[in-house]
Amino acid sequence: MSLVLHGYFRSGTTYRVRLALNWKGVPYDVVPVNLVEGAQSSPDYLTKNPQGLVPALEVDGQLLTQSPAILEWIEETWPKRPLLPSDPIERARVRAFAAAIGCDIHPIQNLRVMKKVRADYGQDQDGAWAWARHWMETGFAALERMAASTGGKNGFIFGDGPTMAEVYLLPQMVNARRFGVDLSAYPRLVAADEAARALPEFEAAAPENQPDAV
Amino acid sequence: MSLVLHGYFRSGTTYRVRLALNWKGVPYDVVPVNLVEGAQSSPDYLTKNPQGLVPALEVDGQLLTQSPAILEWIEETWPKRPLLPSDPIERARVRAFAAAIGCDIHPIQNLRVMKKVRADYGQDQDGAWAWARHWMETGFAALERMAASTGGKNGFIFGDGPTMAEVYLLPQMVNARRFGVDLSAYPRLVAADEAARALPEFEAAAPENQPDAV
Repeated sequence: MSLVLHGYFRSGTTYRVRLALNWKGVPYDVVPVNLVEGAQSSPDYLTKNPQGLVPALEVDGQLLTQSPAILEWIEETWPKRPLLPSDPIERARVRAFAAAIGCDIHPIQNLRVMKKVRADYGQDQDGAWAWARHWMETGFAALERMAASTGGKNGFIFGDGPTMAEVYLLPQMVNARRFGVDLSAYPRLVAADEAARALPEFEAAAPENQPDAV
Repeated sequence: MSLVLHGYFRSGTTYRVRLALNWKGVPYDVVPVNLVEGAQSSPDYLTKNPQGLVPALEVDGQLLTQSPAILEWIEETWPKRPLLPSDPIERARVRAFAAAIGCDIHPIQNLRVMKKVRADYGQDQDGAWAWARHWMETGFAALERMAASTGGKNGFIFGDGPTMAEVYLLPQMVNARRFGVDLSAYPRLVAADEAARALPEFEAAAPENQPDAV
């Protein structure tokens, strides 16, 4: 199977896909899509992803979009080194943790929304970053409460190794640090982030280690 | 198995869960959580969902949150009358369509975000609704392009019956009509919405048919 990941080093959703593929040991090629230069809106890229968002994963020439869908496809296609538990209720809990980031934090503070806040409501960069921090702080407080009863070990949120919880958490923590969120209120999240980033497969997926990093 | 759905008649995410349970023929009790009165932030409800959002699904006393996680759990637990296709690539496409709504439209235009736009940026109701319409129109244009190559029948987006695509679409169409989106540009979405709403199981899940509807 031939995989080509169209994405951007700093895109959190692209980072998620790298984390899952690396963890499963699945090889893939990378084609950078420079979000700052607007490459995601080029006619060529729109044929790959009609939403004009990254990532898009090309699977033997077929295009998959939306990281939550791509991640489920990866988990179904390479079930070894699972990122979801086998117990149905536990699976739902891991997915809920992931969705609390993937639906309720990340999309509200991503590039296109911050651009809209600046363009329509006269916000400067500080204002846009304050918007982003608000949604991260609200979401992280809930995640920290959720993590209090998950019974993870070795720092991880669920179980004794990484799950989709860390796949979604790490990219969000990058944004949190970038936008100046005070992380001291979220010790469980910080511990999980550190535990997961220490894994070589996860380290290799980090934004700063990508070929298009600037 | 005993199911209690904590939610609100007008909540799109609660509506998704009703659609899936009704389609599968799974009985459940309803406990209304009045979002307008702020019941989602009560100490009692926060023990059910630390995010302070609806829905929460109580399964034999265990609490599940986040509609994307709840919907996957429903599909895994009651595989008959599937809402996801069996082919892995097709599953990913249906999930991508769903996530394009669940991540990139709905959370950006929900109640708490519109409240923030009003409170922080001096927007009135018209301004908040314009914000909501912008994200729906951007998202619907992409969904309409995505739906052009899905090969659905009888009006449905994928296959010849409802999938997770319609489970996510119907609640978003309710919001679109409520906030004044001109739907004439999205004929495939309108057709799928009409086809799915004509199903008795889906009709019974509509907001106006709920016990807490006002």
